[in-house]
Amino acid sequence: METDNGKGLILAVASSVFIGSSFILKKKGLKRAGAIGTRAGYGGYTYLLEPLWWAGMVTMIVGEAANFVAYIYAPAVLVTPLGALSIIISAVLAHFLLKEKLKKMGVLGCVSCIVGSVVIVIHAPKEQTPNSVEEIWNLATQPAFLIYVAITMSIVLALILHFEPLCGQTNILVYIGICSLMGALTVMSIKAIGIAIKLTMEGVSQIGYPQTWLFVMVAVTCVVTQLIYLNKALDTFNAAIVSPVYYVMFTTLTIVASAIMFKDWSGQDAASVASELCGFITVLTGTMILHGTREEEQQQASSEHVRWYDSRKSMNEEHLVSLYSPEY
Amino acid sequence: METDNGKGLILAVASSVFIGSSFILKKKGLKRAGAIGTRAGYGGYTYLLEPLWWAGMVTMIVGEAANFVAYIYAPAVLVTPLGALSIIISAVLAHFLLKEKLKKMGVLGCVSCIVGSVVIVIHAPKEQTPNSVEEIWNLATQPAFLIYVAITMSIVLALILHFEPLCGQTNILVYIGICSLMGALTVMSIKAIGIAIKLTMEGVSQIGYPQTWLFVMVAVTCVVTQLIYLNKALDTFNAAIVSPVYYVMFTTLTIVASAIMFKDWSGQDAASVASELCGFITVLTGTMILHGTREEEQQQASSEHVRWYDSRKSMNEEHLVSLYSPEY
Repeated sequence: METDNGKGLILAVASSVFIGSSFILKKKGLKRAGAIGTRAGYGGYTYLLEPLWWAGMVTMIVGEAANFVAYIYAPAVLVTPLGALSIIISAVLAHFLLKEKLKKMGVLGCVSCIVGSVVIVIHAPKEQTPNSVEEIWNLATQPAFLIYVAITMSIVLALILHFEPLCGQTNILVYIGICSLMGALTVMSIKAIGIAIKLTMEGVSQIGYPQTWLFVMVAVTCVVTQLIYLNKALDTFNAAIVSPVYYVMFTTLTIVASAIMFKDWSGQDAASVASELCGFITVLTGTMILHGTREEEQQQASSEHVRWYDSRKSMNEEHLVSLYSPEY
Repeated sequence: METDNGKGLILAVASSVFIGSSFILKKKGLKRAGAIGTRAGYGGYTYLLEPLWWAGMVTMIVGEAANFVAYIYAPAVLVTPLGALSIIISAVLAHFLLKEKLKKMGVLGCVSCIVGSVVIVIHAPKEQTPNSVEEIWNLATQPAFLIYVAITMSIVLALILHFEPLCGQTNILVYIGICSLMGALTVMSIKAIGIAIKLTMEGVSQIGYPQTWLFVMVAVTCVVTQLIYLNKALDTFNAAIVSPVYYVMFTTLTIVASAIMFKDWSGQDAASVASELCGFITVLTGTMILHGTREEEQQQASSEHVRWYDSRKSMNEEHLVSLYSPEY
C-alpha cells in the first residue's frame, strides 16, 4: 500500500509539473503566433502552425495521462487536491519566463498551496486498490453511493432544466455546479477504467466484463457534459473567477464521492482526517489568494488598457468610460 | 498529560480572545477621548479618564496572565503560535465594532491562521511538566541549551554594539532581531517561574531554591530589553510591518528554544513534526496576509488623507506631494 500511494503521489506531482508548464508553452506559442498573424482571441488560427503551441498541447496530454494513472494507485483525496500545484508551477514559470511578476500575496498563495499539499500527503489514507472491475462495481452499487449518484443527477437535471434558462448567464454556480458534479463522477469512472487497464496489462483481463464498458459509457457521458459546461462558464465569466470556484467545487465533490465509494477514511483516526481537511482548506485558501492576485493584476492591466485606448480617442466624444467595467 | 495540554490550549485561546478584544476596547476608548480632548497621537492624555480604555487595559492584563499560565501546562510549540488568534479576533471585532471592513484577502488570512492553529494543536507534543525548579535548571544547563543561549547572547550583543549604530534606523531586523531573541529567553524563564508558582501553590514550595530567583532575574532582564527594543521598532517603522515580522521571528525562536530546552519533539514521529511545521507556516502565511491587507488599507487611507490635505492648501504652492510617501 505504502508504495502504491508513493507511485500515485509521484504521478500526481509530475502531472502538475507537466500541466503547469503546458500553460506557459501554449501562451508563448500564442504570443509568437499573434506577432505574425491574427491573435487567437480575435479568431486567428496561426497558432496551429506554431511548434511551441503544439509542445504545450503534448505536455498537457502527458500531464492529464499521468493524472489518470495516478488515480489508479492513490486515493482521490490525495491526487485531486495536488492539482493545485499546477497553478503554482504556472505562476512561478510565468514569473520567470513571461515576466508576469509574482507579487508578495502571490508568493504567500503558493506557500499555502504547498504547505497544505504536504499535510494532505502526510495524512492521506492508504487505499486498498480493488482487484477486479466487479469489485469496483460492487463499491459503485452500494446504497450510500447510489444515493450520492441519485442526488447528484437530480441536482444536475434541476440546474440544466430549471436554473440554466433562469440565471445561467448571471450566476456562475449554475455552469460550475454542473461541471463539478459531473466531474466527480468522471473521476470515479476513470478510476475504475484505470484499474481495469492495469489489471488487464497484468494479465487479468477485464475486457470481458460488461461493467468495464458501463464505466466507459459513464466516463464519456460525464466528460462530455463537463467540457460543455466548463466552456460555457469560461465563455460567460472571467477566467480568474471560474478557475478557483471550479477548483474548489470539483475537488470537494471528488473527495466526497471518493470517500463514499472507496471508504477512504474508514480506519483513519480523527486526527488524520481533521489534518487532511485542514490541509485541503489551506490549499483552497492558497488557490483563492493566487487567483485573487491575478484578478487584481488583470483589473490594473485592463484599466491601463482603457487609459491607452481612451487617450487615442478624439477628445470631443462626451461619454464616461468606466475604468473597471468588467465587460469592457 | 492529555488534560495538561487541554488546559494549556483553553488558556492560550482564552488569552487570545482577551488580548484581541483589548485592542478594540482601547481603540474605542482612544476615539472617545480624542473626541473630547487632544488625541494620544498628538501627546494628549485624556484617554486616562476614559473607562473604555481602562477596560481594554484590564482585558489585556488578564489575557497576558492567561498566556503566562498556559505556558505552565502546555509546550511553547502549542501556546506561542496560538497568539495569532488574537490578530483574527481583533480583525473580526474591528469589522463589526469599528466598521474597519475585513476584505476577501483578510478573510482568507483569518482562515489560514485558524486552520494552521488546528493542525498545530492536533499534533502538539504531550510535554512532561517538570516536577521542580531544580529539574528545569538541569534542562536549562544542558550543553545544547547553553550553546543556544551563548549564540543568542552573541548575536544580541553584535546587534546592539555594532549593527544598531550602523543601520538600526533603516533595517527593521536589528530591533526586531534583538527583541525576538530576548523574547524567546523570556518565555523559557517565565515558564520556569510559572511552574515554580504552580508547585508552590500545590504545597511543594520552590521559594527556597536559588534557581527560582535566578530565573526571575533572567526574566526581568529579558522582558525589559524586549520592551525597549520593541518600542524602538514601533517608533521607527510602520506597525503594519513590525507586527508580522516580530510575530514570525518571536514565534520561530520560541519554538526552537523550547524544542532544545524541553525536547518537545523527542519521541514524536516525523509525520507529526512535519505536520506541526506545516501548521506553523500556514499560521505565519495567514498573519502576513492579514497584515498585508491592513498595510494596503493604510496606504489607501493615507493617500485619501493627503488628497484632503492637498486640496486645503493654497493652489499657488508649487511642490509635488508624493501620494505614497511613507513618512508623510
